[in-house]
Amino acid sequence: MAKLWEKGYEFDKAMEQFTVGDDYVLDLALARWDCVGSMAHARMLARIGLLTGAEAEGLCGRLREILGRHARGEFRILREEEDVHTAVENDLVQGLGHLGKKLHTARSRNDQVLLDLRLYMRDELLGTARQCCDTAEALLGFAEKYEHVPVVGRTHSQRAMPASMGLWAAAFAESLLDDLELLRAAYRVADQCPLGSAASFGVNLNIDRQFVSDLMGFARVQNNVLYANNSRGKIEGAVLSALAQIMLDLSKLSSDIIFWAMPEFGYLTLPEELCAGSSLMPQKRNPDVFELTRAKAATVTACMAQVLEQARPLISGYHRDFQETKRPLIAGVTQTRASLAVCRLGVSQLGCDEARCLAGFTREVFATDRALELVKRGVPFRDAYREVAATIEQTPMEDPRENIRRKTHTGATGNLGLTLSHRRIAEERLWIERAFAAWNEPIGRLIGE
Amino acid sequence: MAKLWEKGYEFDKAMEQFTVGDDYVLDLALARWDCVGSMAHARMLARIGLLTGAEAEGLCGRLREILGRHARGEFRILREEEDVHTAVENDLVQGLGHLGKKLHTARSRNDQVLLDLRLYMRDELLGTARQCCDTAEALLGFAEKYEHVPVVGRTHSQRAMPASMGLWAAAFAESLLDDLELLRAAYRVADQCPLGSAASFGVNLNIDRQFVSDLMGFARVQNNVLYANNSRGKIEGAVLSALAQIMLDLSKLSSDIIFWAMPEFGYLTLPEELCAGSSLMPQKRNPDVFELTRAKAATVTACMAQVLEQARPLISGYHRDFQETKRPLIAGVTQTRASLAVCRLGVSQLGCDEARCLAGFTREVFATDRALELVKRGVPFRDAYREVAATIEQTPMEDPRENIRRKTHTGATGNLGLTLSHRRIAEERLWIERAFAAWNEPIGRLIGE
Amino acid sequence: MAKLWEKGYEFDKAMEQFTVGDDYVLDLALARWDCVGSMAHARMLARIGLLTGAEAEGLCGRLREILGRHARGEFRILREEEDVHTAVENDLVQGLGHLGKKLHTARSRNDQVLLDLRLYMRDELLGTARQCCDTAEALLGFAEKYEHVPVVGRTHSQRAMPASMGLWAAAFAESLLDDLELLRAAYRVADQCPLGSAASFGVNLNIDRQFVSDLMGFARVQNNVLYANNSRGKIEGAVLSALAQIMLDLSKLSSDIIFWAMPEFGYLTLPEELCAGSSLMPQKRNPDVFELTRAKAATVTACMAQVLEQARPLISGYHRDFQETKRPLIAGVTQTRASLAVCRLGVSQLGCDEARCLAGFTREVFATDRALELVKRGVPFRDAYREVAATIEQTPMEDPRENIRRKTHTGATGNLGLTLSHRRIAEERLWIERAFAAWNEPIGRLIGE
Amino acid sequence: MAKLWEKGYEFDKAMEQFTVGDDYVLDLALARWDCVGSMAHARMLARIGLLTGAEAEGLCGRLREILGRHARGEFRILREEEDVHTAVENDLVQGLGHLGKKLHTARSRNDQVLLDLRLYMRDELLGTARQCCDTAEALLGFAEKYEHVPVVGRTHSQRAMPASMGLWAAAFAESLLDDLELLRAAYRVADQCPLGSAASFGVNLNIDRQFVSDLMGFARVQNNVLYANNSRGKIEGAVLSALAQIMLDLSKLSSDIIFWAMPEFGYLTLPEELCAGSSLMPQKRNPDVFELTRAKAATVTACMAQVLEQARPLISGYHRDFQETKRPLIAGVTQTRASLAVCRLGVSQLGCDEARCLAGFTREVFATDRALELVKRGVPFRDAYREVAATIEQTPMEDPRENIRRKTHTGATGNLGLTLSHRRIAEERLWIERAFAAWNEPIGRLIGE
Repeated sequence: MAKLWEKGYEFDKAMEQFTVGDDYVLDLALARWDCVGSMAHARMLARIGLLTGAEAEGLCGRLREILGRHARGEFRILREEEDVHTAVENDLVQGLGHLGKKLHTARSRNDQVLLDLRLYMRDELLGTARQCCDTAEALLGFAEKYEHVPVVGRTHSQRAMPASMGLWAAAFAESLLDDLELLRAAYRVADQCPLGSAASFGVNLNIDRQFVSDLMGFARVQNNVLYANNSRGKIEGAVLSALAQIMLDLSKLSSDIIFWAMPEFGYLTLPEELCAGSSLMPQKRNPDVFELTRAKAATVTACMAQVLEQARPLISGYHRDFQETKRPLIAGVTQTRASLAVCRLGVSQLGCDEARCLAGFTREVFATDRALELVKRGVPFRDAYREVAATIEQTPMEDPRENIRRKTHTGATGNLGLTLSHRRIAEERLWIERAFAAWNEPIGRLIGE
Repeated sequence: MAKLWEKGYEFDKAMEQFTVGDDYVLDLALARWDCVGSMAHARMLARIGLLTGAEAEGLCGRLREILGRHARGEFRILREEEDVHTAVENDLVQGLGHLGKKLHTARSRNDQVLLDLRLYMRDELLGTARQCCDTAEALLGFAEKYEHVPVVGRTHSQRAMPASMGLWAAAFAESLLDDLELLRAAYRVADQCPLGSAASFGVNLNIDRQFVSDLMGFARVQNNVLYANNSRGKIEGAVLSALAQIMLDLSKLSSDIIFWAMPEFGYLTLPEELCAGSSLMPQKRNPDVFELTRAKAATVTACMAQVLEQARPLISGYHRDFQETKRPLIAGVTQTRASLAVCRLGVSQLGCDEARCLAGFTREVFATDRALELVKRGVPFRDAYREVAATIEQTPMEDPRENIRRKTHTGATGNLGLTLSHRRIAEERLWIERAFAAWNEPIGRLIGE
Repeated sequence: MAKLWEKGYEFDKAMEQFTVGDDYVLDLALARWDCVGSMAHARMLARIGLLTGAEAEGLCGRLREILGRHARGEFRILREEEDVHTAVENDLVQGLGHLGKKLHTARSRNDQVLLDLRLYMRDELLGTARQCCDTAEALLGFAEKYEHVPVVGRTHSQRAMPASMGLWAAAFAESLLDDLELLRAAYRVADQCPLGSAASFGVNLNIDRQFVSDLMGFARVQNNVLYANNSRGKIEGAVLSALAQIMLDLSKLSSDIIFWAMPEFGYLTLPEELCAGSSLMPQKRNPDVFELTRAKAATVTACMAQVLEQARPLISGYHRDFQETKRPLIAGVTQTRASLAVCRLGVSQLGCDEARCLAGFTREVFATDRALELVKRGVPFRDAYREVAATIEQTPMEDPRENIRRKTHTGATGNLGLTLSHRRIAEERLWIERAFAAWNEPIGRLIGE
Repeated sequence: MAKLWEKGYEFDKAMEQFTVGDDYVLDLALARWDCVGSMAHARMLARIGLLTGAEAEGLCGRLREILGRHARGEFRILREEEDVHTAVENDLVQGLGHLGKKLHTARSRNDQVLLDLRLYMRDELLGTARQCCDTAEALLGFAEKYEHVPVVGRTHSQRAMPASMGLWAAAFAESLLDDLELLRAAYRVADQCPLGSAASFGVNLNIDRQFVSDLMGFARVQNNVLYANNSRGKIEGAVLSALAQIMLDLSKLSSDIIFWAMPEFGYLTLPEELCAGSSLMPQKRNPDVFELTRAKAATVTACMAQVLEQARPLISGYHRDFQETKRPLIAGVTQTRASLAVCRLGVSQLGCDEARCLAGFTREVFATDRALELVKRGVPFRDAYREVAATIEQTPMEDPRENIRRKTHTGATGNLGLTLSHRRIAEERLWIERAFAAWNEPIGRLIGE
C-alpha cells in the first residue's frame, strides 16, 4: 500500500515503525469522521467545479461503503498505511482508480486530521455532557432518597458538624453542573471548521469554506488558516481541562465512598456486584471501581498537562509533535466517559445505613451550633467560641435528625434546593440536544443516513 | 496577637512557621477583598438582627479605615497572625473591643477565604480579559501594518508555502479571542457567592445568603454549602486552565519572534529597549522577554496541574491542603498578566524587514501552488503531486507578493477577515464592562467609595 | 475461566470491563516474568515443605511450557481472566488439576505483580543502559568525524561564539553518561525482591524470602513487607525519573538537529531514508523522527508525574489505584527505548556540511574572544567588554577553524576529552554486564534455559 | 547601579521588571555561594597570571567582607541590579575600583549561576540526606517503642490482615533509606564543577579548570563546556526527582497519621502542640502539619515537572528560560527540608493507643491466616481460600498480639529487622560526612574561615 507522499526512496523500517507508532490503531476512533469529512470535501469540490457532480457522487458512494464496513467492524488500517487518511485514500484509489486520486485536492493531512479531531471532540463532548446530566440525576436521586439521613460532616478529616446524606450527594450534582459550563466553552471552541486551512497556508483555489462547514453543521469556520493549525493541541488541552474538572468531582466522590464504606464507618453500602475480591484474602469485598476512578482522575490531569506542554514551545505551523497529542486526547475522553458510566451505576446502587450514620455522632459535633446559640442570646461570637471550647465535654447531645432539618438557610441541610439542580439539568439537556441537532441533522443528510 | 482559635495551649513554633508558610505575605493580595467581604457580612448580620445597625456601621467604618491603610501600603500581616482574616479581626478587636469579636458570627475562615478568593479571581479574570483584548488589538495593528509582507510559511520547521506577516499576527489575535470563551466560562463558575457555607455545613442561624451575595454583585449564591468548600482548588483549577490557554498562545508567539529575530532570518526586528545584553559577549542583544514568557507558560501549566492534584484525592470538606493552592493561583494570575503586558508592548514595538522576508523565498516554496495549478487543468491531485515532486528543481519562481494576494478564500492571506476580529474584540469588551459593572457598582456602594 | 477471587456472586459486567481496563493486554509485557517468579516461588514452597519436590517440578514444567508458548507469541490473556496472574493459574489448573491450585500459597497478587514489575524494570533498565552507551558511542563517533568543523555557538538562540560539531555531539554523550548514574540508582532501588510480602502483611508460614530472592538473582530482599507494597508507584516513579532525564537529552538533541537541518542553516544533513514526506507539499523532507522524539519526552515526563501523583495521597497498603501506574510505566519504558534506538540510528547517519557551517560565521561571533585578548594585554575585563561593544563593527574576522583549535582548556573545542567519555562508556558497560550476569545466570538455571 | 551589560541605551522599565522577576530576592539563597565561587575564580586567575597575587588577595578580602555582611543579614540586592552576580561585582567595583572590573575575566554569568546553583544543591542535598537519616531514626524509635502493638492492616482501605505499629513505622524508615540511593545519584551528578564553561563555549585563555574545581572540593570538572550549560534545568530536575521521592514517603506517612488519628480510630494520638484549631468550631484539633505535608508533596512534583518541561524543548546553549527554573528548585528544596523537619518532630511526639488498636480487630482479619493454616494441613490454597470465604463468619478470633509475633519470616511483624535499618543509617551518615568533608574543608581554606 502506498504512502501519500511516496517519492521513490525507501523510508527506513525502524523509522517508519517509530513514526507511525500506534496511530494506525488510534485512528480507528476517527475513521467515521474521516469519511464524513471527505464526503463534505468532495461535495465542495464539485460545487466549485473541481469535480463533476458524478465524480463527487462516486467518491461519496465509496466512502459510504467504507462507513458501512467500519460500522460492522470490518475496516482496518495497516501499519504501513500510517493513518486513517491514507487507508481511506488507498481504498478509494483501489475501488475508483483515477478518481480516488482527486479527493486530496486542496487539502492536506494537516487540516484533514484537524477536522477529524474536531468532529470527534464535538461528538464526544456532547456524549460526555449527557453523561454528566445522567450522573447528576443519579446523585439527586440518592439525595432525595436519603435527604434527611444525618451524617457527621468532617473538616481536616476530623469530625466537625452535622451534615446529611442529602447535602453530600447534592453537592456533587451541583459540581457536575458547573462542569457543564466549562464543557460548553470547550465545545464552542472545538465547534469551528478547520477544513481548507490545508498545510496552514490555504490554497490557490477558490474553495468555499463556509459551504463545507455548513455541510457538517459547524457553528462557524475557523477563519485564519494558520490559527487552524496552531490550535492543534490547544483545543485538545481545553477539552481535557473540562474533562479533568469532571474527573476531579468523580475522584472526590470516589474518595468519600471508599471512606464511608469502610467497615468502621459503614455509612454507605456497596452491593457486592460492584465489588471485586482479593486473590489471597477470602473475606475481602473491595471498592475497586472507585479506586480506579480516583486514579484515572490523575491520568486525565496528566493527559492534559502532556498535551499543553507538547504544544507550548513549538513555532507556528504543523509539527509531527502533534501526533503525540492524539493518544492523551482519546485516552482522556475514553477514561472520563467510562468513569462517568461506572459512577452513575455505582451511585444508583449505593445503599445507606442510617443507624450507622446516627451512631457516628458525638457531643462535640454540636459544639459549633451551641456556640451560635449563645450568639443568638447576645454573646459575641469569639467569646461564645471560647466558652464552648472550654466546656466541650458538657456540650449536650442533640438529635441529629432535628438538627439538620433546622438549618434552613439557602443550601443548608434543611433547604437543599434540589429542584434548582433538576431545573439546571433540564436546561443543560435542552442545550445538549439543540447542539446535537445542529450538526447531526446536516451530517445525516450528507451521508444519506 | 491572638489566633482566632487560641485555646490556652502553645502551638509548637516550628509547626507554626511550617503551617503559616508565606500565607501572611500572599494574603496581602486578598486584603482588600477580605474587608469588602466583611462589610457585606456585617450588613447581613444587621439585616437579620444579630447586629444592630450601629454595630454594623461601626464595623464597616473600621474596615473602611483598613482599606485605606491597605491602599496606602500601610497594612501589614504578622506571621503569628497566620493570615489576613486574623489580622483584620485582631485590628477590629483592638479598635472596637467587644464589637470586633462579633463579626465572625455565622462564618468560618473556610468560607471567608473562599469568598476572598472568589472576589480576587473575579477581578483578575476581568483584568486578564481586558489585556487579552489589548494584546489582540496590538496583534491586529501589526497585521494591518504588514498585511501584505510575504514570509515563508513553515511546517516541520521546514520551508513549506508562502505565508504573510498579516496571516501570522492575525492568527494569534484569533487565538486570544477563543481564549476569552474559556475565560468567560471560568468567570461564570467563579462568580458565585460561597459566604454562609461556613465550615461546609452552614449554620443554625437564619442568615440571608442571597442578600449578602447581592451586596457584592455576585451572579448567584453558590447553593450547596458542602459544594462551596468542595470547589476549593477546583475553581482555581478552572481559572488556571483558562490562563494556561493564554500562556500557550504567548509562548508560541514568543517562539516565533525569537526564531524570526535570529540574524539568519531577520524577518522581525526587536527594538533595543526590549532587549537585554550579555555579561560576557559584548555584541549580544537578546530576546529575554520572549524567552521568559515561553518559560512562564510552563510555570502556569505546572501551577494548574499542582492545584488539581492537590484537590483530587481529598474527601469532602475543608483540608489544610487547600492552603497550598493559594500560591499557584496567585502566581498563575500574576505571571499571565505580566506576560500579556510585555507581549502587548513587544508586539506594538516589533518591526518587520520586508526585504529580508522576501529574500527567504526559494522556488520549492511554490511547489504546492504549482501542483494545484495542474489540478485546475484537470490532473488528479495525487498525480500532479508526484509530477511536481519529480521536477522540483524546475518549479518557477513566483513573486510572493502576488502569490499571497491571490489566495482569497476565507482566512487565507488575501482575505484575512481582520474586521471580523475587531468586531469580536468589541463584543468581548462590551461583555467585560457589563460584567465589571455588575459587581463594581454594588461594591462601590457597599464600601462607600 | 474463573477469577482467583470467585465467590459465587456475579461481578457487574460494566464494572468488570472498567476494572480490567487494558490490563489483559499490558500484562503480556509481564508474562515471561510472571512465569519466572512462579517457578522460583514453587521451588521455595518445596524447600519449606509445602510442596513435594515432584509437585514443584510439575508446576515448573508447565510454567516452562507457558514460557515457550509466550516466546512463540501463542500465549493469550482473556479479558475475563483480568490479568496475567489469573491466566497463568487457570492454565496450571487446567493442565495440572489440583496441583495448579497450590501455587498461590503464601503469596498474593499484590506481591506477585510487584515481583513481575521488578523483574521487568530490572531487565528494561539494563537494556536502556546499554542503549545509552550505544547512543553515546554514536555521538562520539560523530564528534570524532567532525571534531574540527566549526559552527556558530548560540545563546538566547542568537549567534554567540565559535563552537564546533565535536563540542556539540560530545556534549550529548557526556549528558547520557550522567544519566547512567541516575539509571543505576533507580536500578538499585528496583533490584530488591518483594516476594513474600503477600498482601503487605506477610504470612503465617515459614517462607524463605532470601532463598527465593537468590533464585532470581536479586541483590537483596526488600525487607519490610509493608514497605514492599508501599513502594508500588514509588519505584516506578524513580525509574521514570531516570528515563525522563534520558528523554530530556534526546529532546534537546532533536531540537538541535531540526534547527540545524533547516535549509537556511543546512549545517546538518539528514539522509532521506530518515525523512518522511508531506501529503500536500511535494518538496518536503521532514525530520519527523526528531519531532516525535521531542514530543515523546513530554510524554515520559507526564507518565512520571502521573505515577507519582497516583501514589502520593494513598494510605499504606495496596489500592487498586496502583493498576493505573502500569500503563505509564510500560509506556515510558517503551517510548524511551524506541527513542534511543532511532536517535542512535539518526546520529550514525547524520551528515555535516562544513562549508555551510563556515558560511554561518560573522565578525561579531569573535567579539568575546577579542575582548579577552585585550584582557591578556592588561585591560580590565569590564572595560575591554565595553570597548569591544562600542566598536563591534570593527571586530576582525578570524578563521573559525583556527579559533576553535586554539581553545585548549579542559572541555573546550580544542581539548574535548573524548577518550574520557570512551573510558566512562567502557566502565558503564562493565557494570551493565556484571549486573546482568548477576540475575541472568540464576534465572537461566531456574528456568532451565 | 550599573548592569553588567550596560551599553548606553535604556532598557524599558516594564521589561526590566518582567525579566528580573524576583531573582533579586531568590538570589539571596545563592549569595554565599556566589562569593565562594568568585574567590576560587580570583585565585585561579592569579595562578595563570591574569591577576597578580595581590589583586587576587584584594578581591578575596572584599568578597570575605560581603560574606560577613551576608551572614549578618546586611547584604541586599537591588532590583535594578538584576541578580546577585551584578550586586557583588558592583560592590567590588565600588570598593576596589579598577580591580573590581577584572574579576569577570574568563567567565560569564552563565557559568557563574551554574556554579552557584551547584554549590547550593550540593550543600542542600547533604542537609536533606542528614534529615532523612534523622527522620528515619525517629521512625525506628517509634517502631521500637510500639513494635508489638497490633493494628489492623488494610488493603483497598478495607480491613485486611493483622499488622503492627512496628511494621508500619519501620516501612517508612526503609523507604527513606532507599531515597538516599536516589539522592546520592543526584548528588554525584551535581558534584561537578561547571566554572570555565563561560557562555557555553569556553574561552581563549589558558584557564585551569581542574585547579578551580579542586579549590571548591568538587569531585570532578564538568568536562564539555557546552554540556555544562545544557545541564541547566536537567540537574535541577534530577535533584527535584530525588526530593519528590522523599515527599512521596512523607505524604503517605501523613495520610496514615491523619487517618489513624481520626477519633473513630484513635490509634495514633497527636499532642496538642502539633495541632491547630478552627476559627468556627471550638472542639477541633486538626492535623494541619500533616495535611500541609501531603499537599506540599504535590508542590514538589509540580516543581520537578515544571523544570523538566522548561528545559526539554530548548536548543543547545543558554536561554533566559532557565531563570524560571530557579524558583521551583529553591521552592522544592525548601519545602522538602521543612517537611522533613516537621515530620521528624511529629513522629517523635506521636503517641499510640494500644487499647484502641486492639479494639479495631474483627474476626475476618484472621481469615487469610486461617486459610494458610489449612494449607499447612495439605489443602491446596485455592480450595482453602474458597472454604474460608464460604464460612467467613466462623473464623475464630485470635489474639492479635500473638498473631503478629508468630510471623517470623524476613520483614514480617515478628522479624522486622530494625537493626538492619540502623546499620544502613550509620553507613549513610558515614557517606554524608565524608562527602561533606570533601568540600567543606577546601572551602574553609578558600574563604579563610
